[in-house]
Amino acid sequence: MKEVFDYVDRHASEFVRELQGFLRQPSISAQGKGVEDAARIVERMFSSLGARVQVLRAGEAAPLVTAEIPGGGEGTLLFYNHYDVQPPEPLDRWQHDPFGAEIDGGKMYARGVADNKGDLVARVKAVQALLNTRGNLPVTVKFVAEGEEEIGSPNLERYAKEHPEVFRADACIWETGGRDEEGRLEITLGCKGLCYAHIEVEGGSFDLHSSLAAVVPNPAWRLVWALSLLKNDREEVLIPGFYDDVREPSPREVALIEKLPADPERLAKQFGVDRLVLGLVGTEALKRLYFGPTCNVCGLSAGYEGPGSKTVLPSRAMAKLDMRLVPDQRPTDITRKFEDYLRAKGCGDFRVTWLGAEHPARTDPDSRIVKVLRETVVELYGKEPLVFPTSAGTGPMYQVAAQFGTPTAGIGIGNVGSRVHGPDENVSVSDFLEGIKCMALVLERFAG
Amino acid sequence: MKEVFDYVDRHASEFVRELQGFLRQPSISAQGKGVEDAARIVERMFSSLGARVQVLRAGEAAPLVTAEIPGGGEGTLLFYNHYDVQPPEPLDRWQHDPFGAEIDGGKMYARGVADNKGDLVARVKAVQALLNTRGNLPVTVKFVAEGEEEIGSPNLERYAKEHPEVFRADACIWETGGRDEEGRLEITLGCKGLCYAHIEVEGGSFDLHSSLAAVVPNPAWRLVWALSLLKNDREEVLIPGFYDDVREPSPREVALIEKLPADPERLAKQFGVDRLVLGLVGTEALKRLYFGPTCNVCGLSAGYEGPGSKTVLPSRAMAKLDMRLVPDQRPTDITRKFEDYLRAKGCGDFRVTWLGAEHPARTDPDSRIVKVLRETVVELYGKEPLVFPTSAGTGPMYQVAAQFGTPTAGIGIGNVGSRVHGPDENVSVSDFLEGIKCMALVLERFAG
Repeated sequence: MKEVFDYVDRHASEFVRELQGFLRQPSISAQGKGVEDAARIVERMFSSLGARVQVLRAGEAAPLVTAEIPGGGEGTLLFYNHYDVQPPEPLDRWQHDPFGAEIDGGKMYARGVADNKGDLVARVKAVQALLNTRGNLPVTVKFVAEGEEEIGSPNLERYAKEHPEVFRADACIWETGGRDEEGRLEITLGCKGLCYAHIEVEGGSFDLHSSLAAVVPNPAWRLVWALSLLKNDREEVLIPGFYDDVREPSPREVALIEKLPADPERLAKQFGVDRLVLGLVGTEALKRLYFGPTCNVCGLSAGYEGPGSKTVLPSRAMAKLDMRLVPDQRPTDITRKFEDYLRAKGCGDFRVTWLGAEHPARTDPDSRIVKVLRETVVELYGKEPLVFPTSAGTGPMYQVAAQFGTPTAGIGIGNVGSRVHGPDENVSVSDFLEGIKCMALVLERFAG
Repeated sequence: MKEVFDYVDRHASEFVRELQGFLRQPSISAQGKGVEDAARIVERMFSSLGARVQVLRAGEAAPLVTAEIPGGGEGTLLFYNHYDVQPPEPLDRWQHDPFGAEIDGGKMYARGVADNKGDLVARVKAVQALLNTRGNLPVTVKFVAEGEEEIGSPNLERYAKEHPEVFRADACIWETGGRDEEGRLEITLGCKGLCYAHIEVEGGSFDLHSSLAAVVPNPAWRLVWALSLLKNDREEVLIPGFYDDVREPSPREVALIEKLPADPERLAKQFGVDRLVLGLVGTEALKRLYFGPTCNVCGLSAGYEGPGSKTVLPSRAMAKLDMRLVPDQRPTDITRKFEDYLRAKGCGDFRVTWLGAEHPARTDPDSRIVKVLRETVVELYGKEPLVFPTSAGTGPMYQVAAQFGTPTAGIGIGNVGSRVHGPDENVSVSDFLEGIKCMALVLERFAG
């Protein structure tokens, strides 16, 4: 691989500039900002590889940009990525322009650089490096890049139904990943599912003087009471049947967790909290993080939120909630139970809008792709990777891979300080360049 | 009084223009906007009466603008008003510029026109009309105009301690009031007290990816749980001892409520709600409105509040709450019980800032000023006024009057559609002009 790695080193600054260009294009799916422009950048990147590129459409959905480059050997490896990013808000918490892609102290700062534009570019450049040094690829490579991952991939199921051929592969490399605080690469074998609820409660037809609070119902109170019935302060989700389909992790999966360095307390400190929920420590905290479903308040809004006091009875109240699901919970089942419960509690007039619903998925830890990734990491970095039976996060692994029986593993260029979804999201420039080499080596090893 | 009323009629458009000028000056105490400029306008208005004007200062507080005009006869009547207004937000709910003072269909629209710049100007113009027609006033008139009423008059107690002489009077006319849907003038004999809490809950040092919700405490959940412990959905405040000092209303006060037209349901419909809390109807609803203390969510904020979905674990959550107190609840006692309760419930780390605390106050319904107002209204409008033993709202009646033993009654130029504290606050231009005549007549009658 020396010639391939040399190629990467020679083209390093050019690759960095290309990534910066991509990052400077906002592509905020939640706000409908710049998504089409980002898709065109992806299309051009894929085309530059000489790939067969398709920009697939499904109604008003963001396009699915796909590519296929035939390989010299047997087998097909699919790269799943997304070109959309989370909203950058709250902007006042950023030290760097979220769409400036500034490099500062060896780190590149931008919304989406870790999740996951950096990985998408690293994979494209790995293919380019192989093609430009060897003339062809060891295996067939497919790319699927979607533009709605950060809003729960609402149209990916439809794309998968209408174009199953662009997804079929022998294995899939998932969108993102990173290193732990000691620099060990992390390999991730699953995704949690998700149900995302936007809840609106209406009261009077306009905000009222709060003296009327003695007799006029307050939608903010109604929302608070309803939320307090969804989860109690022992962190138990109270929706009847919520836990019914939670599958016990296999002994093999539990063993992977037990092999992980169990220092979630250190992580807690890094995030600025004193303790984890329920005072959990060690492996118990990790088991809850990876095998437990969640019910989380993402946002609240009602009445007067400005400085000082305003004595007002709000006319509406809003909450955003996400629930992360684990196998074998099903989003349609959970959303139904959620709505039934609210209705039973006298909240049938709440307007619940589901902004995305995703199945959980997990890959067998003994799959071949897991072995290939592990061996690649040992060869390249000289250190055993950490293998996670699942991510604590969500992705459309079911639609992209699990429903086609494709074993899937995630690996990427982020690190424990990458602040994914937060302000000052960043990656190390050197990790980006290493990531290109890593992906080239994975392709070679996968060919056997 | 004919010559006085003729004077008002002749100067009507000039008086309207003066009120518009005052309304176009924002004076939002909660946001520190324009308060000093509004104080200067008040100072000029008082000076134009030839009054002895003082602009009193207390540290950084908004100035207290006071005036005294000696009268020909015995007795002193105090007008209490404020020149600050509520914030106009949410701006998108206004059909008119909140600081435009547009006249549309006989109504003048502006933040503060009903609460209570319109009344302040009407009272100044009543004095002007008497002086310019008769050469002097029947009784001594005092004005006290403060600039912090809408943030709970935090410095009025200090002003009252340092300058008691500007408050002393034989009776006090309160800042505002209005008519009911049948045009009957309302006279109000008390104010509820208030404790206003701004509550902040901190979590991690920045917003986190919500996948961490399985193990990282969420300040929005902690806030929701704490709020749900403050009041239950049977509208019972759960703070221990909250109701201890609630005084049973006197039979005379209850009789006043029972004489009121008991149609709070109609009011409910006007505000766009189907029913009142607990399904209350008739006199029971009115008793709760006037004699019951409240605990009300004025505002909520946490995490992502924008369009679409963002899977985030908020780093902070905020609530604004007001509690309206009735005699003999004391704000210092309630704030202490509130904080003790939060601490006992494991919320000792919540940051509670008290933005204003006010004593409740009530005037004896048999006081002479009540009789004067009633007779004036019958003479001028030919209809019995409605007498309320108290307002459902709050004002610093204790600091201004009750602590000096001054009987106090409120009357004003608003109406049931005036949208006090809401968007499109308004009064009828004709009510403003009638209000000038009404105040002139009150001064004459008060002289006996």
